[in-house]
Amino acid sequence: MHKVIYDTDPGVDDAMALLFLHRHPEIDLIGITTVFGNASVETTTRNALFLKREWDIAAPVAKGASITIDPARAEREWPAMVHGDNGLGNFEVPETIDLPLDPRPAHRFIIDTVRANPGEIRLVAVGRMTNLAMALKEDPGIAALVKDVVIMGGNFYVPGNVSPVAEANIHGDPEAADIVMTAPWKVVVIGLDVTSITTMSRSYLGDIAAKGDQAVKQLDALSQHYIDFYKHAVEDGMMVHDSCACVYVVAPELFTTITGAVRVVCGGIADGQTIVKPDGCRFPPGDWDGLPSQVVATGIESEKVIGLIRDTLLAV
Amino acid sequence: MHKVIYDTDPGVDDAMALLFLHRHPEIDLIGITTVFGNASVETTTRNALFLKREWDIAAPVAKGASITIDPARAEREWPAMVHGDNGLGNFEVPETIDLPLDPRPAHRFIIDTVRANPGEIRLVAVGRMTNLAMALKEDPGIAALVKDVVIMGGNFYVPGNVSPVAEANIHGDPEAADIVMTAPWKVVVIGLDVTSITTMSRSYLGDIAAKGDQAVKQLDALSQHYIDFYKHAVEDGMMVHDSCACVYVVAPELFTTITGAVRVVCGGIADGQTIVKPDGCRFPPGDWDGLPSQVVATGIESEKVIGLIRDTLLAV
Repeated sequence: MHKVIYDTDPGVDDAMALLFLHRHPEIDLIGITTVFGNASVETTTRNALFLKREWDIAAPVAKGASITIDPARAEREWPAMVHGDNGLGNFEVPETIDLPLDPRPAHRFIIDTVRANPGEIRLVAVGRMTNLAMALKEDPGIAALVKDVVIMGGNFYVPGNVSPVAEANIHGDPEAADIVMTAPWKVVVIGLDVTSITTMSRSYLGDIAAKGDQAVKQLDALSQHYIDFYKHAVEDGMMVHDSCACVYVVAPELFTTITGAVRVVCGGIADGQTIVKPDGCRFPPGDWDGLPSQVVATGIESEKVIGLIRDTLLAV
Repeated sequence: MHKVIYDTDPGVDDAMALLFLHRHPEIDLIGITTVFGNASVETTTRNALFLKREWDIAAPVAKGASITIDPARAEREWPAMVHGDNGLGNFEVPETIDLPLDPRPAHRFIIDTVRANPGEIRLVAVGRMTNLAMALKEDPGIAALVKDVVIMGGNFYVPGNVSPVAEANIHGDPEAADIVMTAPWKVVVIGLDVTSITTMSRSYLGDIAAKGDQAVKQLDALSQHYIDFYKHAVEDGMMVHDSCACVYVVAPELFTTITGAVRVVCGGIADGQTIVKPDGCRFPPGDWDGLPSQVVATGIESEKVIGLIRDTLLAV
């Protein structure tokens, strides 16, 4: 069993990924930590509690960061046109959910849980990297105790989605992402190189909903606004960004990867860009020297990934 | 006939490109301007004069920039391991060449020649962009009078060659390159996306030399050190970077291209990176807005390009 802490900002594709983690038989979802990004942290936390209640998920929810790790960064508007005004595609969600939060802030929950399960925890982070960076700053020793960190974020040999070179999760807190990428733990970066070519059509999702239970039908309903948003890039369907990272946890063989040190650009026109120096490539001395070698996904078997998501969502 | 000013820092692949320009029947090489880069501008200018004399090239040589357009940038060592200590692969070159230089500095030669041939000049720039940026600063009006600017430099969806994201010519003077890319003239960017996959083997070049005249035999001899350098990346051969840009002048149909605004990162870990915002791609408002759309090569028919270089070098 893979012990997973899911760091998330639900978020429509976050919701699909959450149901995947909840339902996959080899995954033990032991915590959900929230972060600002697709909406405010108040909204993403409310959404996490809502999905926990609706889908009967046992894992506790711990509320995380509300601003970037460098407080000097200017706030931006929430991406309501992507995830709706309420972060869940304008699907009807109660204003408050009567479920208790974990009393700890997200980064403290991460530290405690990692220390209680040395060598076992897989951190799956699909929002901004703020909580992970805060955990590392407060307790750098956890890096050696985490099994790995699988993130959805970044882009390497394809364009970004919020600037020509930057992806939204990394661009949302570049300093935090640079801390996470350069820490002495194993990071697997599942970025736009693979997630932007892994799409689920509206009819495919509808077919899953028709065959599935109430949870899957809710997932289908809350995804419609997101699919509408994606019409500029996908023919009547959605990129399943966050689920790709979750699939990696159980089926890494569906990905091709390279290894190398990863840095994040902080500031300037390339703000938030992820850059890998592939191992074995020769360059003059530079900013990637002496950093840990991370794993970067460059290829994916998209059809098999979509099929595994489908089978998992239907495996009740 | 294409009226070409060749801005260059010979340089081994610069030498092949010079002979291509000199010998192609549809190209009228009307000026050679030199710049620092593969060696000091004293050395690259001496080399240009040497090749002019050896190959009986009529075009005048004008000496150009010796430092970056922002003088605050630190100088770096010359890439002797690539182009040899003398910039021509340690091929024996006299210390001085008894030929007159054009009395004007390179950027002034460019301005005067463009103004004397409105709408006709194709600037082929295969070194750092310093001379072109200086010409634009001194006389911005030339932008509307140049037919186009074809540069060898940059990289978009492939790694760089002097950092994980930067190519040597652009990295050597990022501020100059940003001025050139964003000016209101047509720039065609022939970068590593196409040049790094366009290689000529040692034996192929040797075969050309065997069939060719003294000039081609010299070219073969001075390329041997460069081919040795490339053993980490090419199986016994060389990337013909600069010749690719020259081939574009006469055979653009051998390239696939995209269009979009291009910026160059100045400073930070991505220093010298070229970034295109492809036309039609949606992003939030940003640093590429309102800039001229340039042409970026993303694909090349390498075999045909190599064949055209061969045929041209042998067409005496």
